[in-house]
Amino acid sequence: MLNSKHGSISRATVDRLPLYFRTLRLIRSEGSEIVSSEELGRRIGVTPEQIRKDLASFGAFGKKGVGYHVAELVNNISQILGLDRKWNIAIIGVGHLGWALANYRNFASLGFHLAALFDQNPAIVGQLINGVDVLSVADLETTITSRNIQIGVIAVPAGEAQAVADRLVAAGVHGIWNFAPVRIRVPDDVQIVSEDLSVGLSTLSYHLRRQVP
Amino acid sequence: MLNSKHGSISRATVDRLPLYFRTLRLIRSEGSEIVSSEELGRRIGVTPEQIRKDLASFGAFGKKGVGYHVAELVNNISQILGLDRKWNIAIIGVGHLGWALANYRNFASLGFHLAALFDQNPAIVGQLINGVDVLSVADLETTITSRNIQIGVIAVPAGEAQAVADRLVAAGVHGIWNFAPVRIRVPDDVQIVSEDLSVGLSTLSYHLRRQVP
Repeated sequence: MLNSKHGSISRATVDRLPLYFRTLRLIRSEGSEIVSSEELGRRIGVTPEQIRKDLASFGAFGKKGVGYHVAELVNNISQILGLDRKWNIAIIGVGHLGWALANYRNFASLGFHLAALFDQNPAIVGQLINGVDVLSVADLETTITSRNIQIGVIAVPAGEAQAVADRLVAAGVHGIWNFAPVRIRVPDDVQIVSEDLSVGLSTLSYHLRRQVP
Repeated sequence: MLNSKHGSISRATVDRLPLYFRTLRLIRSEGSEIVSSEELGRRIGVTPEQIRKDLASFGAFGKKGVGYHVAELVNNISQILGLDRKWNIAIIGVGHLGWALANYRNFASLGFHLAALFDQNPAIVGQLINGVDVLSVADLETTITSRNIQIGVIAVPAGEAQAVADRLVAAGVHGIWNFAPVRIRVPDDVQIVSEDLSVGLSTLSYHLRRQVP
C-alpha cells in the first residue's frame, strides 16, 4: 500500500508524519488493530478530514465505517520516515541529559543504534552506560569514521554546542539532533533538528492561561 | 499592539506560536532588533506569506521593506502564550531526566518557577538541586496545595506515569507536562502536553533518508 510518489507529500503533511507515527505506535501498543480517522484526529489534534487527506497522500485509504489498519499504517509510515533503516548515532555530552538520552528505550525500536558516547570529563570517560562505553571527545573524529556514525546528538552546554557541531560535521555526520538551547549553524547538506523545551512549556501555558483565574 | 481578539486565532497558528516565540527569542539573543518575514519563515520552515498572515492575526504588522521589531513581537507573543504570568511547577521523578529538567535554565525567563521536586528514593530525598530540596512523593498532595503548584512535570518511568498523573490531578494541578513515553489520560479540564523523542528522531530520519545512500 506504500506508494512510490511520496516525494510529492506536502511539507505540512511531512511535519505531521512523526505525530501520526508516534500516535499509531501508541494505539498499537494499547492493543487496537483498527483506528478511525475521528479517533486519530482527536488524538493528534487535527480534523478527521485532514487525517483522511494526509493519509491518502501517501496511498493509505481506510475502509468506510471500519477505519485504518493500525499495524499496516505504522509500517507504511515507518518506511516513509526512513525508520526501516538502521542509523548509527553518537551522544556527545554525558551529563544528566546525555545520560537520560543514553537510556532512552525506544532507540532500537525506531531503528536507531546507539553506537558511541563521548564526554570530556575523565571521571565519566570509561564508564559503561546501557552497554556503551563513554569515550573521550578527543576520539570523536576517528570513532565517527570507524563506527560509521551518521547522526550526532548534542547534549553539551550551550556554549560548547557550535564547536561540537563543527567537529561532527567535519567528521562526516549527516544529521544533528541538538538539545542545547542555542541555534546551531550547519551546512545545507547536513540535517538538523533541535529540541527546545520552551515549545512544550509555552503550549501548556497558552492553554492554562484561559482556564486558570 | 497586542489586540484583544486573539481568541479567534486559528488552531494551526496557535500550534506555531511557541515556534515563533522560541525563534524570536533566539534572534533577540543574537542581537538583532529587526527581522523580516523571509528570515523568520526560513528559520521556522514556513513561507513568508504564512508568517505575515499568522502575525497579522494577532495584530502585529511589520513595516514594508523594514520588517518586524523583535523585542515587541517577543512581548506580544509572550502575553498571548500566558508567559507573562508566573506558573509554579513541580517535577516528579528525579532520575537523570528529572535532574536535567530541574537544572533547565530557561524556566525563570519563561515565567515558570520550580517550586518542588519529588522522588521516592530515600537516597535522593533531601538533596538540594538548583536550590530546591527533593521531597518524598508521600508529601505530593500537601505540597501541591501549600506551594500553589499549577503544573506537574512527570519524569517517572512509563509504568508509574498514570498513577502519578492521577495523584497530581486529584491534588488540583491544572496542567501536566509528560516526559514518560506513554499516553496519559486526564480529565478534560486538565491540560496535558507530552514530549516524545520519537518525533524529533523520525523528522531527522525522514530528511536523512533522501540524502544518505
